[in-house]
Amino acid sequence: MKSFNYYQPTRLLFGSGRRAEAGAAAREMADSTLLVVDPMLLRVAADKVEDVTRALEKAGVRTVMFSDVVPNPTLDAIQRGAEVAKAENVKSVIGMGGGSAIDTAKAIAVAATHPGTAWDYLYFKDKPTDATLPIMAINTTSGTGTQTSKVSVFTNTEENCKSAMWNDHLLCKVAIIDPELMVSVPVRVTAATGFDIFTHTFESYINTGSSEAVDAIALDAIARVIRSLPVAITNGSNLSAREDLAWADTLAGQCLANVGTTLPHAAGQPISGHFPKVSHGESLAVIYPAFAAFTWRGAVAKFAKVARMFNPALSAASDEVAAQNFELEIERFLKLIGLYCRLDDFGITPDDIPPILVHAMEFPDSQGNPVVPTEEDMRSIYMTSFRAA
Amino acid sequence: MKSFNYYQPTRLLFGSGRRAEAGAAAREMADSTLLVVDPMLLRVAADKVEDVTRALEKAGVRTVMFSDVVPNPTLDAIQRGAEVAKAENVKSVIGMGGGSAIDTAKAIAVAATHPGTAWDYLYFKDKPTDATLPIMAINTTSGTGTQTSKVSVFTNTEENCKSAMWNDHLLCKVAIIDPELMVSVPVRVTAATGFDIFTHTFESYINTGSSEAVDAIALDAIARVIRSLPVAITNGSNLSAREDLAWADTLAGQCLANVGTTLPHAAGQPISGHFPKVSHGESLAVIYPAFAAFTWRGAVAKFAKVARMFNPALSAASDEVAAQNFELEIERFLKLIGLYCRLDDFGITPDDIPPILVHAMEFPDSQGNPVVPTEEDMRSIYMTSFRAA
Repeated sequence: MKSFNYYQPTRLLFGSGRRAEAGAAAREMADSTLLVVDPMLLRVAADKVEDVTRALEKAGVRTVMFSDVVPNPTLDAIQRGAEVAKAENVKSVIGMGGGSAIDTAKAIAVAATHPGTAWDYLYFKDKPTDATLPIMAINTTSGTGTQTSKVSVFTNTEENCKSAMWNDHLLCKVAIIDPELMVSVPVRVTAATGFDIFTHTFESYINTGSSEAVDAIALDAIARVIRSLPVAITNGSNLSAREDLAWADTLAGQCLANVGTTLPHAAGQPISGHFPKVSHGESLAVIYPAFAAFTWRGAVAKFAKVARMFNPALSAASDEVAAQNFELEIERFLKLIGLYCRLDDFGITPDDIPPILVHAMEFPDSQGNPVVPTEEDMRSIYMTSFRAA
Repeated sequence: MKSFNYYQPTRLLFGSGRRAEAGAAAREMADSTLLVVDPMLLRVAADKVEDVTRALEKAGVRTVMFSDVVPNPTLDAIQRGAEVAKAENVKSVIGMGGGSAIDTAKAIAVAATHPGTAWDYLYFKDKPTDATLPIMAINTTSGTGTQTSKVSVFTNTEENCKSAMWNDHLLCKVAIIDPELMVSVPVRVTAATGFDIFTHTFESYINTGSSEAVDAIALDAIARVIRSLPVAITNGSNLSAREDLAWADTLAGQCLANVGTTLPHAAGQPISGHFPKVSHGESLAVIYPAFAAFTWRGAVAKFAKVARMFNPALSAASDEVAAQNFELEIERFLKLIGLYCRLDDFGITPDDIPPILVHAMEFPDSQGNPVVPTEEDMRSIYMTSFRAA
């Protein structure tokens, strides 16, 4: 067995209705908090937010609400939140919402307690310290895994650059994973975020830096996505499918915190960067078939194992054949969840690829791919992600 | 899905040779430490202990060694260790050895920082506080899972009573799991401790208080024990079998910390209590067939799943048939690892059962068994654990 490290200190409270326990859990962190809430949540699920504020009040936690949260969090919004946190002298931060609200909360926890801005603590710059405020996540989508990962992604609009903090201090003290908060997520978002759970776990599983600690939870999460994502898409209010995805997403965050993604994230993120209307999940979906065709020979047993999870009939086939069929199975699954797409679908043309390619080669993720792509390999992956002429 | 909590904050450093990293890891906890070492280790593996003390010295961690560790740790020894820790003003504790050394270290971490003795902080008494010294485990056996569990078991010889602390403050900050430390464990101990890994995971899996968070890691650990315990018994120096067991044991500690054991531990522990020559693993082995026969109807799918892991041929059988066959499979496995035994083998007679039974009924563990035993049920389980007349 390879050597590996494993660390996941977040206290997890999982289960439908558990947002009611936010008060007691927050009280263990501190007696005051900045509640960072997605403003959309205040519109579409005000009662659920109220469940949390009531619980905080009951537990005697002084709560300051901050709902200046934007999708793809910006450094500006984070700074505004940090100013509020400092002015109000709160001793903890709670993020309630999707990845944007929680990543904003995480960044505020650093920005409110360190000199400079959150931008000074990106993964390759200074490290946040113990002074970071304790963080709680109450996630309302399943897809980012941020409730158990140590990342916070945000954009510096001045520098026109999206980057991330990546540090153990960004691991939440507590995560409340309440699937009742997820039943109202729209179909397209459910598909894209649900597929993202798959990518976080599958890429951690095949990553050359993977470990046996992560393999087991990755496979558990993959099985949940395969069985429950199609159900949640057909019937968004199916609570047991939402529960399955919520737990899979929590495991995915653990995979991200301890291993991480590979080629598809390197290839997909610049697509969204250059064409913001392409969601993160779509950018991965468009790349996956070509990624699979390029990569399966580098991890035959693992591609075969997951191909058989998609299609048990492949149990009769050799590992080689099953692994090669992964491409076909992922296409079928993407069609099943309505997420199958090609670059042309977004109005992208071959002429758009060169600048995307430059950015893709800058991402470190591909270094953990079972076959590390050259620039020419990556170009070929993009070019085969268009419809055949 | 049922609601559940999950918490496992220990930083895990897994891999052969990683004891060399003890210095850097200890330095993150504090600049001084009490190194609690099993004295047997100082005799049979002095070089391995030296690897650790050298690493601590190199990292600038002031180290005071304490090797007054006894099997089945006593309150007296713990108090002596706590006095040393206080006198030397150390700011952390490291336990290196089997369960006894690590549980002694954990208890010292509390006793050195709280009024009274460790006995005042048993699970049903006062709770240890934040003042508890940070703890590191370097485990040299696979079986107790104490490196990831929140328990410390010890005996008050004055009161002639064995009990336990059970608290989050007893979760180690760091655990170094270095399978090279385990290659010299003797065959009989390997069998008994290896079977104990199985019991910790299987009982957590079937526990009515189980959770899907624990199910996945329990099954992963069970698969490792089934494939690697017989190998480690045949060839103790097979490092890859030792690695498999070491990781399974670490997962077992996570199962214990988040769910816990059932009927066999309630039935087995008083056997060792009344007949100390019966090891913990033996006391469980003797009970398992009768426990299985009594319990399988309460958790058919789970007994069937594990029976099929022992014997894939049962895949063709119904769940009912496979579950019923668990008893036979566990007997076969116990024979394979040389641990199959009956109460008679230890000179125990039916007349010895009544006082054992009284103690067994006092253990809370049986309440999580899929079929909760009455006193008469438990008596019958003991009586069928003798050889047929």
